Parts: sequence; structure tokens; C-alpha cells
Amino acid sequence: MSRAAIAVLAGDGTGPEVTAQAVEVLQRVGELFHHTFTFQHCLVGLAAVKADGEAISVDTLGACARSDAILFGAVGGTLHEGAGPRPELALSRLRTTFDLYANIRPIKPFEALDLASPLRSEYLKGTDMVFVRELSAGLYYGHLETVAGKPSEIRRRGAQLEAIDTLTYTESEIERVVRTAFEIAGRRGRRLTSVDKANVLSSSVLWRRVVDRVARDHPAVTYEHMLVDTCAMRLIRSPADFDVLVTENLFGDILTDAASMLTGSIGMLPSASLGARRTEHGLFGLYEPVHGSAPDIAGLNLANPIGTILSAALLLRYSLGLHREAAAVETAVEEVVQAGYRTADIHYCDQSESTVVGTRELGRQI
Amino acid sequence: MSRAAIAVLAGDGTGPEVTAQAVEVLQRVGELFHHTFTFQHCLVGLAAVKADGEAISVDTLGACARSDAILFGAVGGTLHEGAGPRPELALSRLRTTFDLYANIRPIKPFEALDLASPLRSEYLKGTDMVFVRELSAGLYYGHLETVAGKPSEIRRRGAQLEAIDTLTYTESEIERVVRTAFEIAGRRGRRLTSVDKANVLSSSVLWRRVVDRVARDHPAVTYEHMLVDTCAMRLIRSPADFDVLVTENLFGDILTDAASMLTGSIGMLPSASLGARRTEHGLFGLYEPVHGSAPDIAGLNLANPIGTILSAALLLRYSLGLHREAAAVETAVEEVVQAGYRTADIHYCDQSESTVVGTRELGRQI
Ligand SMILES: CC(C)[C@H](C(=O)O)[C@@H](O)C(=O)O
Ligand SMILES: CC(C)[C@H](C(=O)O)[C@@H](O)C(=O)O
Repeated sequence: MSRAAIAVLAGDGTGPEVTAQAVEVLQRVGELFHHTFTFQHCLVGLAAVKADGEAISVDTLGACARSDAILFGAVGGTLHEGAGPRPELALSRLRTTFDLYANIRPIKPFEALDLASPLRSEYLKGTDMVFVRELSAGLYYGHLETVAGKPSEIRRRGAQLEAIDTLTYTESEIERVVRTAFEIAGRRGRRLTSVDKANVLSSSVLWRRVVDRVARDHPAVTYEHMLVDTCAMRLIRSPADFDVLVTENLFGDILTDAASMLTGSIGMLPSASLGARRTEHGLFGLYEPVHGSAPDIAGLNLANPIGTILSAALLLRYSLGLHREAAAVETAVEEVVQAGYRTADIHYCDQSESTVVGTRELGRQI
Repeated sequence: MSRAAIAVLAGDGTGPEVTAQAVEVLQRVGELFHHTFTFQHCLVGLAAVKADGEAISVDTLGACARSDAILFGAVGGTLHEGAGPRPELALSRLRTTFDLYANIRPIKPFEALDLASPLRSEYLKGTDMVFVRELSAGLYYGHLETVAGKPSEIRRRGAQLEAIDTLTYTESEIERVVRTAFEIAGRRGRRLTSVDKANVLSSSVLWRRVVDRVARDHPAVTYEHMLVDTCAMRLIRSPADFDVLVTENLFGDILTDAASMLTGSIGMLPSASLGARRTEHGLFGLYEPVHGSAPDIAGLNLANPIGTILSAALLLRYSLGLHREAAAVETAVEEVVQAGYRTADIHYCDQSESTVVGTRELGRQI
């Protein structure tokens, strides 16, 4: 039996609805497997901007620091260039505070939802990949603060304006995320694709060198280098060819969003953001669905909670080391979907229906 | 009747075969429409490296400068980290020498080839978009030369190495390509999507401002801003929603390759790279198929010449101002495909057969 403290940052839009379902599932897992999970709910995003004047307060960051993992819903509202800090800053703040450098996104279409995909079934068949996106460096975060040697600004240049952004990677920033990817590949299909643009970028040249070096410690994993433009093609043309992919921050942002569309059901996809910080039985992490806050359907009981529930499964696995429990949640979800529990529209199933079933199926699992 | 000088840079792999077919089509257009086209063939790529020790010689650049347009095949061979300059340098050299800042890629699947696409027909239906990719700035070209304030290098940082690349855009670099995109949109469906990452990059913030400013000169065109990650999703989920897209260099590299896969027939796709330099009746430009040199099938008479033939059509339109002639070539290609002239494998049709038919159909056109 284990104890764990989980910070719940439900956020905006559909965030609270989907997070509530994931918390219920975790509570049920606690009962069935005899664990004690405590949940601390904190404000984040627009709600935090309203209450505290910032997207995430120092108190909330402190509460996260005292927990084993963060369960995150979604932030952001309908687009408005209004006053106050952007709600999305909360995510960047959490990523930098806890140095969450590895964003893990498993992409595996549900067979039962085959027809929801824009891809023909024969192209989709066998797709089961995990993206490992570097999340702490690259072109990101220059805009948040002035970093020496890493300008991100708009400045005068003669009679006109010029904008500059800076892409940097140190060897250690590359190495740690590449190690994570090799480890994940070692526990799966033992194939790793490292994605870069080495024919144009110096950072990609360094990236390749580090990958070649780390690969020597993982002789059981077959790996390859692939250019990002080629990868964008292959993801659509032959997604089933991939096992684990690792890439830098912005390439990862673009490619994971493209790949998640293959499944046709972005509402079902989970993610984990991990760093070096350890918990008693694993790594500290932030867990959130891949989808956004969808303000247009917020509060209507229409949002698909499965992305968040599967994120909770990743939380059990990576932060709490509860592998059996994680698999139980995943199997329950799979069975519920297989059993046809969803509305006619694949992307949004009736929340109360899927919850009831999720919990019941979980019970059956054990 | 007009005269035009065309530099033919056939290059490596299947480049010579496909270029030869496009030249034949241009010659036939000349006969039928009473124009005089002269062709100057020059070495480029691996062949040039062998002959001159560089991917493209100053003499060849000079020959290009004296012509109205460049018809380009493909460069590069089987991957080898061998001695000598990389054949791909020829393309960068041409882009910078002639300041070819706008890369135009029309993406319109052939109805007859519907089944070649990984996308289900109902998603693909109605897809007809034109990408305008900025081709002169961004993260590119720092590696070619040392540009003040734009480092691209691997350097020491304390005990380890660090790599840096620099993304820059001036207002005028953004403005000229955005103008090109608005003009193209004005002659098509009057909808423009500008793609950026304004929630992270300063260069994207400047990009948006310039787009908003240029838009005022084009009140008839409806435009929107879209984040690059969202765009990567929408291209797969609802490609038919797009008309014209404009974006910075690297985003364009990734997104156009992804989008070209939608058609399932990359061998059929043409491209044009245009700059400010004018010819008598249009803009100087470089025209090349989207596909690469495919060394594995080089010389086997298997390569699909249609991407290059359609590039020749773009050459007629943009550089020579011969709109009727360009449309005739496009219609001929469409009819040939419609009539089923291709091998069982959609991607590679028998070259001699498609040539014969291409010419005959062209004849019928007139
Ligand atoms: C909100 C934005 C800064 C963020 C990113 O690009 O990292 C988002 O797109 C994501 O992928 O989580
Ligand atoms: C060869 C490479 C530098 C080039 C690019 O990225 O521009 C290629 O991918 C292209 O799209 O023409």
C-alpha cells in the first residue's frame, strides 16, 4: 500500500470537468488497490489570473513542489488580447520551475475508433508510437526572460524593425532527453527515430553527435536519424513504421500535434512531462491531456475525459511506480471504448455515461 | 510570339530523365504557340562536384543570370558523408544568389489518383491549396556564412559544448513574401492563412504585425493567423479548408512536405521559387519538382516526369507570362492522368509512355 499527494490544477474551459473524472478514477484505484491518494486543488490559468493576478501563484507552485505529481486540465479561454498575463504562462512556468524536460506522448489509435481517423485504415493499422519531445530548451523560453546569449526580441535595424529568436542546446540538455527516449525504447519495440534538421542547423549537428554517443550505452536499441521534413511525410504516409521518436522542442510541438490527428481522436490522448526530480517510487511529473480547454463546450458535459484519465494512468506508472494500477486503468478505458460507450460523435462522449462505465469497468478489472 | 532563354540544371539521380521530358514539353509548346525557347544545359550537384569541385560553379550561376528562368531537376545522391562539398549546397547558392524568397507549392490532388492518398476520400475532397514558403531568411543560411548577429555554430560553454542557431526576420523580408501571398490569394479563392508561433517566438509577433499591415492593401482577401501546431493538425484533419498559406522558412519546409503527402503522389507536385528580379514578362524564377533525386531508380526509366512538367507550366506562367500555354500543359497532364496513362504503381509511370502521351495530348489541346 502506498501514499501519494497529487496536486490537481484543473484550469479553464473543460479542464475542471475532465479533471474531476480523472480524480474519481484515481480515487477508485486507491480503494481497490488500497492506496491513499490525497488531492490538493489549486487555481491555474484564467481563474488564477482573476484571483491572484498571475497565471499561477507562488503558493500553487509551492503546493506542486510538495506533491508527487501534478494532474493538469487545460488553460486558456476564448482568444482575447485582454489585460493581464496570458493563462498559458502557467504551463511554461511549471515546465521551467520543475525542469520538466521530457514530454511523453503515446499515440496509439483505438481499434474501435478506426473510422474516426482521416487516414485510411490500411495506413493506420499497427500504429503505436511514443513521442519524446524535449521541453526545456531550443527556441523556447527566450521570450519569458532575458537569457544571456539567447535574445528573443523585436529591435530596430536601420530604418526598420528586425526580430530575433535564438535556438540553443547544450550537450547535457540533449543528452538527458535522449537517454529518456532510449530507455523508453528499450522497454518497448527497441527502435528509436531521432528527428532533426542536420542539413541546416548547427544545433541538429550537435544533437546527432550526442544521439550517436548515447546509443553506445543502448546496444539493444536500433536507432536512426531522420530529417524533420521527411518525418512529417512519413508520419502521414507510414505511421506504423515508428516505435519511439525523440526530437527538439519546436519540432516536437509540430510533429506531435500532426501525429495526434492521425488517431482522429485528440480527446483521447494523454501526455506526461517528466524531469530529473524523483519521487519515492518514480519521477515527479505533470500529466495533462493533449487537447486544450475547448471553451466552446465548457460546462456542457460534452468533453471527452479519456485523455485526462489516461494521463492519470501515466501518473500512476511514472510518478508512483504503480504499473499494475496504470495498466488496469488503460484496460478499463480500452474495454469501455470497445463496448461502444461513447456518443455518435467520437470526439466527445457523454461525460456522465463514460464515467459511470469507467468506474464500473475498473471494478470488473480487479 | 516570344523568345526566352531557359537554363536547364538537370542534376543528379532521376533529375536528367525528368528534366528531359519537361524540356520536350516546352519545345512542343514553343512549336504550337510559335515561341522560341533556347535551352542552356549546365552541371549542378554531384556532377558539378566531380567536374568543378563545387556543387555549382560561378560559370553556371552566370548562365542562370543570363536566362529568364531555371528549370531544375534534383541534386544529391545516396547519402554519403564523403569528401567534397554537399551537392545540396547548389540549391542554397541559387536561392541566395538570386534572392529567391518565395517558394510556391500548389497542392491539388488529382481526382483520378484519389486512392493513392493515405487520406480517406471524404477528407481529401476539394483540397486545392497553394503554399507560399519564405525561402531567404529565418533559421536558414546562418550555416553557410558568418552573418553578423546571426550565429550558427557549435561552441564551448564551460565544460561542455553548446550549439546555437539564430532565427531572424526583418520587416521587409516578411513584407515581400506576404505581399506575394496576398497577390496569389487575390487571384484564387481570396483566403489567406498566415502560419506562425506567435505565442512563443518574437519573430512570429513581428510576422503577425506585418501581415495585419499588408492586409489593409488587400481588402478583398479574407485572412487569418494560425499557430503552426494547429496548422499541422488542420492540414491532416481538414485540408480542403485552405486556399493560400504563407509561412516562414522552416515551418514551410515541414508543412509543405506534410501537405504534399496528402496527395499520395509527391512525384506529381511542382514548385516555383521566385524573387524580386523581373524578366520581360514576369519574374525570374527557379522551377523544380518537389521530389528528390531518387538515386535508387535513376536511369531506369521509372521516374514520374509530371512534377517537372508541371514545374515547366509554372515557368511559363510566372517567368514568361504565358498563361494560356501554362494552362494548356496543365490540362494536358490532367487529361493524360484521367485517361489512365500511368503504370500500375501510381508514383512512377513509364516515362516513355507518359511522354508520348503528354505530347500527343498537348497537340490535341490546341
Ligand atoms: C501553449 C504553447 C506554448 C505550447 C507549446 O508550444 O509548447 C503548446 O502548444 C503545447 O504543445 O503544449
Ligand atoms: C535540402 C534542404 C536544405 C531543403 C530545405 O530545407 O530547404 C529541402 O528540404 C527543401 O525543402 O528544398
